[in-house]
Amino acid sequence: MGGDHGPAVVLPGAEIAAQRHPDARFVLYGEEAAVLPVLEGLPRLKAVSTFHHCDVSIRMDDKPSQALRQGRYRSSMWRAIEAVKLGEANVAVSAGNTGALMAMAKFCLRTMASVERPAIAAVWPTLRGESVVLDVGATIGADTQQLVDFSVMGGAMARALFGIERPTVGLLNIGVEEVKGQDEIREAGRLLRELNLPGITYHGFVEGDDLGRGTVDVVVTEGFTGNIALKTAEGTARQIASYLRAAMSRTLMAKIGYFFAKGAFDRLRDKMDPRKVNGGVFLGLNGIVIKSHGGTDAEGMAAAIDVAYAMASKNLLERIEADLRAFGSRTSPDAALEAPESSTP
Amino acid sequence: MGGDHGPAVVLPGAEIAAQRHPDARFVLYGEEAAVLPVLEGLPRLKAVSTFHHCDVSIRMDDKPSQALRQGRYRSSMWRAIEAVKLGEANVAVSAGNTGALMAMAKFCLRTMASVERPAIAAVWPTLRGESVVLDVGATIGADTQQLVDFSVMGGAMARALFGIERPTVGLLNIGVEEVKGQDEIREAGRLLRELNLPGITYHGFVEGDDLGRGTVDVVVTEGFTGNIALKTAEGTARQIASYLRAAMSRTLMAKIGYFFAKGAFDRLRDKMDPRKVNGGVFLGLNGIVIKSHGGTDAEGMAAAIDVAYAMASKNLLERIEADLRAFGSRTSPDAALEAPESSTP
Repeated sequence: MGGDHGPAVVLPGAEIAAQRHPDARFVLYGEEAAVLPVLEGLPRLKAVSTFHHCDVSIRMDDKPSQALRQGRYRSSMWRAIEAVKLGEANVAVSAGNTGALMAMAKFCLRTMASVERPAIAAVWPTLRGESVVLDVGATIGADTQQLVDFSVMGGAMARALFGIERPTVGLLNIGVEEVKGQDEIREAGRLLRELNLPGITYHGFVEGDDLGRGTVDVVVTEGFTGNIALKTAEGTARQIASYLRAAMSRTLMAKIGYFFAKGAFDRLRDKMDPRKVNGGVFLGLNGIVIKSHGGTDAEGMAAAIDVAYAMASKNLLERIEADLRAFGSRTSPDAALEAPESSTP
Repeated sequence: MGGDHGPAVVLPGAEIAAQRHPDARFVLYGEEAAVLPVLEGLPRLKAVSTFHHCDVSIRMDDKPSQALRQGRYRSSMWRAIEAVKLGEANVAVSAGNTGALMAMAKFCLRTMASVERPAIAAVWPTLRGESVVLDVGATIGADTQQLVDFSVMGGAMARALFGIERPTVGLLNIGVEEVKGQDEIREAGRLLRELNLPGITYHGFVEGDDLGRGTVDVVVTEGFTGNIALKTAEGTARQIASYLRAAMSRTLMAKIGYFFAKGAFDRLRDKMDPRKVNGGVFLGLNGIVIKSHGGTDAEGMAAAIDVAYAMASKNLLERIEADLRAFGSRTSPDAALEAPESSTP
């Protein structure tokens, strides 16, 4: 029911994903009057899905507290998340209200035992390929311990998604020198270097322009800065696309050039297509929840389901749990915040 | 002496600026063995400049404390700033070490009486034209009072630079709803709305993608997030330029298209040229200092001097002081001026 267009986009997106992943099964939650007419026109999805009617839908502008009060136990959003908790689904996908989705996911699935706060991870297209960037909006002002948790969880996600055995991790900062930046980031950097965790290679600090460059596989930051960086990059890409369109339609010569280079422009548009990297992954909960952009179309929705499929089929949750255990075994809860006696750089 | 290339870039940049601004006069500080041979080849600059030899130059990797210890009173960087303090120059421009430049500028010029912390303001190209964005790296984790100061100073700069009588000001946040974001940002928003200052129109919260869109004339944020946003946008622009180059050279058709559309591409490159918006303005000190990118070329250096010329000829400092006075008169002494009267180093 979520997103700007509800079932009219979510279901055609699932239809595309069902074609791409023939072994995927879908459990759909929503209002039958809105869902069933659309589902009738999508025979492939209909064949691999079960539908559950829900009286209540969370609106895009509901406050998280309001959504919890009105939608707990019975809204389509809640029941999709609950399906993960009950083991009836491997992963939940929603294009709905982010704040409500996170609040319900935390309430229903609870954070993992050793994780203090969840994070939202985004897949970021780079000159080298793709990186995982987290947190992009769940936790404002993360402390040292949370930044280390994010590094471990982001590393596990990169390993599952990109198949890299020991992904490189960088902490987003405003200078590469060890002295710069906020205390909690410096401290997290020191801790990551000393712990020398088995699942990740700590690279050091990275700056804003390292995001597009793809300097590391995982970029870790707190949610405020991460959200601003993500939206700044999206805005810059739209701005340049707009300049490019204007330049290519301004003179006859440019229009002729565009005609010849149309294939190249199509490839560029495809490369810059924000729909292809749709899907924020909620990490740190006892279950995987994926948030699609609310304003996306069916292709974008299918991309979010692609991410969900990859996360589920590669056992992201088990990997994160194993990595957090390995991390826990290297540091006791209170030793983690101080200087542990350690070890090889 | 600053920047990656020293006088070899700084002086040709000043030569270009001297041509653009025939009434500008230049006071140059540096090592004579490095400066004079280059100056010999730049007759126009030579005719409108005076040169002062300095034994000490600040290196790009000097720590601010180290730079102050070794370079105070006698380095070329110090003496350029001191020229502003002594009224021998209207504005100082440097391509040198940012941290050292800010430390020296604070020590030499001192912060304005009613300003607690200085900011670095950048001119940001947008779909509507240009905006002022601050702070992009001087003050990490600004509080409510500092964010309001930045709004007033950024407003004064936008009025001087763009000629807008009452620029619109937005606070960078991760959602436009009043409830979102960090406490100090919410509080600054409430204060700006209540004060209804004469020099600015407070717009409300803006998000990362509003930067490129040009939603407001002035975007205010604390220095960590501002720096990350600035570098993320620069990195994204470089990334897309790289995609575009690759797409246009991949097939024969694309190359033919490029040939016809070359004029359009040149205009696009010009539009995206990071050199054109070079020049971070230090605000909140008793004198204007402009920081050029260290890695820029002569054109970029000239652009930084253009900003300096505009700031000096439009009396930025007096405007900021007048606006801060107007702001002070609207708030009670304990709300507005709980900051100390002036700072210690």
